[in-house]
Amino acid sequence: AIVARAEALLGGRRDLEGRTVLVTAGPTREPLDPVRFISNRSSGKMGFALAEAARDRGARVLLVTGPVHLPDPPGVQVERVETAAQMLEAVLRYAPQADVIIKAAAVADFRPAHPAEHKIKKGAAAPVVELVPTTDILKELGRRKAPGQVLVGFAAETQDLLENARRKIREKNLDLIVLNDVTQPGAGFEVDTNVVTLVYPDGRRQSLPPMSKRQVADAILDALPWAGATSAQA
Amino acid sequence: AIVARAEALLGGRRDLEGRTVLVTAGPTREPLDPVRFISNRSSGKMGFALAEAARDRGARVLLVTGPVHLPDPPGVQVERVETAAQMLEAVLRYAPQADVIIKAAAVADFRPAHPAEHKIKKGAAAPVVELVPTTDILKELGRRKAPGQVLVGFAAETQDLLENARRKIREKNLDLIVLNDVTQPGAGFEVDTNVVTLVYPDGRRQSLPPMSKRQVADAILDALPWAGATSAQA
Repeated sequence: AIVARAEALLGGRRDLEGRTVLVTAGPTREPLDPVRFISNRSSGKMGFALAEAARDRGARVLLVTGPVHLPDPPGVQVERVETAAQMLEAVLRYAPQADVIIKAAAVADFRPAHPAEHKIKKGAAAPVVELVPTTDILKELGRRKAPGQVLVGFAAETQDLLENARRKIREKNLDLIVLNDVTQPGAGFEVDTNVVTLVYPDGRRQSLPPMSKRQVADAILDALPWAGATSAQA
Repeated sequence: AIVARAEALLGGRRDLEGRTVLVTAGPTREPLDPVRFISNRSSGKMGFALAEAARDRGARVLLVTGPVHLPDPPGVQVERVETAAQMLEAVLRYAPQADVIIKAAAVADFRPAHPAEHKIKKGAAAPVVELVPTTDILKELGRRKAPGQVLVGFAAETQDLLENARRKIREKNLDLIVLNDVTQPGAGFEVDTNVVTLVYPDGRRQSLPPMSKRQVADAILDALPWAGATSAQA
């Protein structure tokens, strides 16, 4: 107990010791042709910060990430994927081992229905791209959620934030959603800080002040059932 | 002359002293909505290598780049843009000052006709994205080319390579095209090496062995009219 207290005072909480945390990060890329794709502004920084924070709190961490320009965090098992379909496959493969799954990835909701085999040429006729929905990974994880497994989602919205977040919690069987107003300065994609509100299934919400993505990561881990627990080893 | 010879022997050619070289690099991003975009696999490495090589040979270098994860090269004037329209505006603004324009950027040929103001929601109906052509920057530069100005293009093709390259030279009034078979290993996007063929307006072509992007950059600069010239200052 004294050791645990000292660790806590030093910021060295080990409350996830013995737990496996699966984190997803980054965007996905959905090919239009061999060189072009649809993607989004996710940098992967929030997911990587979560992976590092969970590792520092003693968890075994599995990180599945789309294409980002960030090095593998030491001590984290990293799998790099490109498309939403590859992300789904990897996440479903790891999910049964995970006590916590945090989906920080900005997975494409749509992909081109018919990617071209060769580079599309400039032509007289303006091309029209038919999109089809990708599989909703978070919903799929919610459907398969094991007893005691904790599922955390993100909502990067530009309108009707709280309403959309509450609908997502219900529809996807989440334990926590991290609501992110990407229209705010210092929030969301491609920046090192974030401004989030944590929303719980019982309707409670907790607005956090602007802070670094690493601090947001620790605030999210603080909301887990085991937060502050003294680990078996301590 | 002895100094120039010594510089040449040491690899320190200053044959672009007094010249202005405008280089474009990277992909562009064409928004679908506030967070999603269409882009391509260009890393910007070839354009940045060209900018650095031209700088080292004494040129004043202007670099217009799309979103890439590369730092500004020291001694190069860098302007960062996002869309094809912004790239066009910047390039046309700098072009009148340039003795050489090398378009290494992979500018989007198409952009969504009607970007959404708010993030597109997953919906029952699969969205269809209407694309419209962007302005062909290289063709525009070819049309406006000043006497003595040298215009260099790239062709990243996956089929009919030489035929497409020769058509581009004619249609865009180029002085040199760098042909890039992106289907070859060690060539094209996201790698540090490249395998290219230089194609000239008179039909001559020069296939280069696999080499670093910096070496390709120097081979391209070697093909300029002033290559190997002793600078006024030497």
